[in-house]
Amino acid sequence: MSEKILAINSGSSSLKFKLYIMPAETVLVSGQIERIGQPSSEFSYTIAGKKSKLAQPMKDYETAIQTVIETLLASHVIESKHEIIGVGHRISHGGRYYTKPVIVDEDVKAKIDELAVLSPLHNPVNLLGIKAFEKLLPDATEVAVFDTSFHHTIPAKAYMYALPYSYYKDHGIRRYGFHGPSHEYIAEKAAELFGKQQTHRLISCHLGNGGSLTAILDGHSVNSSMGFTPLAGIVMGTRSGDIDPEIIPFIEEEFQMDSHAVREMLNHDSGLQGLSGISNDIRDLDEAAKQGNQRAQLALDVYAHQIQQYIGAYTTDLEGLDTLVFTAGIGEHSALVRQMVCERLGYLGIKLDPEKNAANALSIEAADSRVKVAVIPTDEEIVIARDVMALLKEA
Amino acid sequence: MSEKILAINSGSSSLKFKLYIMPAETVLVSGQIERIGQPSSEFSYTIAGKKSKLAQPMKDYETAIQTVIETLLASHVIESKHEIIGVGHRISHGGRYYTKPVIVDEDVKAKIDELAVLSPLHNPVNLLGIKAFEKLLPDATEVAVFDTSFHHTIPAKAYMYALPYSYYKDHGIRRYGFHGPSHEYIAEKAAELFGKQQTHRLISCHLGNGGSLTAILDGHSVNSSMGFTPLAGIVMGTRSGDIDPEIIPFIEEEFQMDSHAVREMLNHDSGLQGLSGISNDIRDLDEAAKQGNQRAQLALDVYAHQIQQYIGAYTTDLEGLDTLVFTAGIGEHSALVRQMVCERLGYLGIKLDPEKNAANALSIEAADSRVKVAVIPTDEEIVIARDVMALLKEA
Repeated sequence: MSEKILAINSGSSSLKFKLYIMPAETVLVSGQIERIGQPSSEFSYTIAGKKSKLAQPMKDYETAIQTVIETLLASHVIESKHEIIGVGHRISHGGRYYTKPVIVDEDVKAKIDELAVLSPLHNPVNLLGIKAFEKLLPDATEVAVFDTSFHHTIPAKAYMYALPYSYYKDHGIRRYGFHGPSHEYIAEKAAELFGKQQTHRLISCHLGNGGSLTAILDGHSVNSSMGFTPLAGIVMGTRSGDIDPEIIPFIEEEFQMDSHAVREMLNHDSGLQGLSGISNDIRDLDEAAKQGNQRAQLALDVYAHQIQQYIGAYTTDLEGLDTLVFTAGIGEHSALVRQMVCERLGYLGIKLDPEKNAANALSIEAADSRVKVAVIPTDEEIVIARDVMALLKEA
Repeated sequence: MSEKILAINSGSSSLKFKLYIMPAETVLVSGQIERIGQPSSEFSYTIAGKKSKLAQPMKDYETAIQTVIETLLASHVIESKHEIIGVGHRISHGGRYYTKPVIVDEDVKAKIDELAVLSPLHNPVNLLGIKAFEKLLPDATEVAVFDTSFHHTIPAKAYMYALPYSYYKDHGIRRYGFHGPSHEYIAEKAAELFGKQQTHRLISCHLGNGGSLTAILDGHSVNSSMGFTPLAGIVMGTRSGDIDPEIIPFIEEEFQMDSHAVREMLNHDSGLQGLSGISNDIRDLDEAAKQGNQRAQLALDVYAHQIQQYIGAYTTDLEGLDTLVFTAGIGEHSALVRQMVCERLGYLGIKLDPEKNAANALSIEAADSRVKVAVIPTDEEIVIARDVMALLKEA
């Protein structure tokens, strides 16, 4: 029997979705709505290879989701709302509560709301999405898929911060790790493509506007570079990543900044943008560096160096390395970044084939590389859809 | 011609010194004064192998230094104050100004004062020490030896934080690295002991109540785990080391803490002490863990794991590893920590000899270890005395 399942990936003012026939994993429709809440909001979608675009103001998530459902009906992808039996939502922060996906009930919604303080940009809109679907598709089962839950296998030695213990015990301050569905997809896909032995010790580099690295041992996360929040780890588009923590009280005292202003600066004015003063986009930095812009080159150098540092560090968690995977926007498309990252890792047995790397090939290592190096497009939505199916079967 | 040189290493309420005959590097006297400014202050010193102790209140640094000089005269180590021709001071923070030791003049003192904001616990007392010696030994040349300057060879990709660029350009916010004289001593001593080829790619682990790791390529620092301040890097006795920076505004907002309270917590209530709730001392934690205390074991596990992470990361800076050195209180004396750190590093070619490790031997690697692993007692004072001599020759 085949089922129609929606996978929802909502951002701070956007909503991406895919409608699947499961378990075949056929994508019936994929689409996204940008700039929800602004007059310029726009809905673009693809049905059977045909792209369409609908520019109309959508004042909130409910209106946006209403538009999606009406479009599905009008295009006869579904004949009735009842055909969609499950909706999976990617939820940013599951805190200490969720080590796996769950069917949404009142308690789950309360927990997502409670955890909004840990992910203020995402958990609230994730919850809005859930509530809108509950209203508009009352017969469907809503499932919450947490960005953090793939990382529940990280051991205490890696998730504990060396702060007073009560911060962990009473307030849940620890490393969580994010981008769970992406790293999980990469772990599974790499094992499927290259075999379990070749992917025994794997590092997944999810490099997008946000970025994180995960050390994966036999399919399980054992360390991940984002932390208590998605600010930590490597430098990102506009996020600082790791810095000396004492810089924060220093800045607050020297520049009379409050915690809100510091948080804003760390999340929105830092990263590749802050370093280069030009752009948060690797392509712009590559272009500018080629024109001789030194700060653009510096931003690229810092980016590659920080990724190398994590690869080196995570190789100790894995006691060696069998496969290195690059994924997400930059990971899938920037041959430059992959080349810069790998060029000092020969001691680990990593050696790229420059032509394969330039072509964004699936396998980009040289014939005599001891480590497999792969470029795998990530697919968070299929992980969400699979999670929904698994829970529907259990229920 | 031989010269008498004093090397001064002053802490927040203490002063350690050695009086050398240079260039022979003979130690005439070594001593320390604890609890300066308290009624219980105490001066202990060793002359020609004979230990003495003098318990008397010393109200300030000037009184303490006066006591040292009077003791040197009374014991006939010197017959006149004029015999001491140079005094070298270990200075915590040299900021962007100093890439090597300098003879102290008014400008140097002003800069040390200016940089006190970056090292509030140390630079002010370092300056007090300089001023007291200027007054009490007016004929001696005062030399400032900066904890940061050995690290001036760290490349920009490793010293830049991904913050708005003006923080670096206008305010000097970058990684500096500390424990310079110790890491420099280790680099030189290791090369002397094992040869330049065997120490081409070296990681120095200075593990004391404060701790830092430095990646050293052909004798030059290329990365170091402390950052803008000595808070960053690995977990220490009471310092947190690296954490997700967003934890700080989170704590400030959730717990109504101001920047001063946060700084205090990060520096004094965190680290091994905060994690274990028992002690900042590895020996106590080892004892408690053996008795079954889980938080003591957790603190040890986090400590070893973080050191491993830096060793893995720094191996990428060095493109491999030839020699790993442990030094300072824990590094020199804790076979347990060395064993825990090394046990997952077999993939780098590191293998310990358990008996040599237990004996704190100079070389503790197994016969078939590809990497040399050494235990070398550090000696910051001799680096200071050498720096004084080098500057006196130039002058």
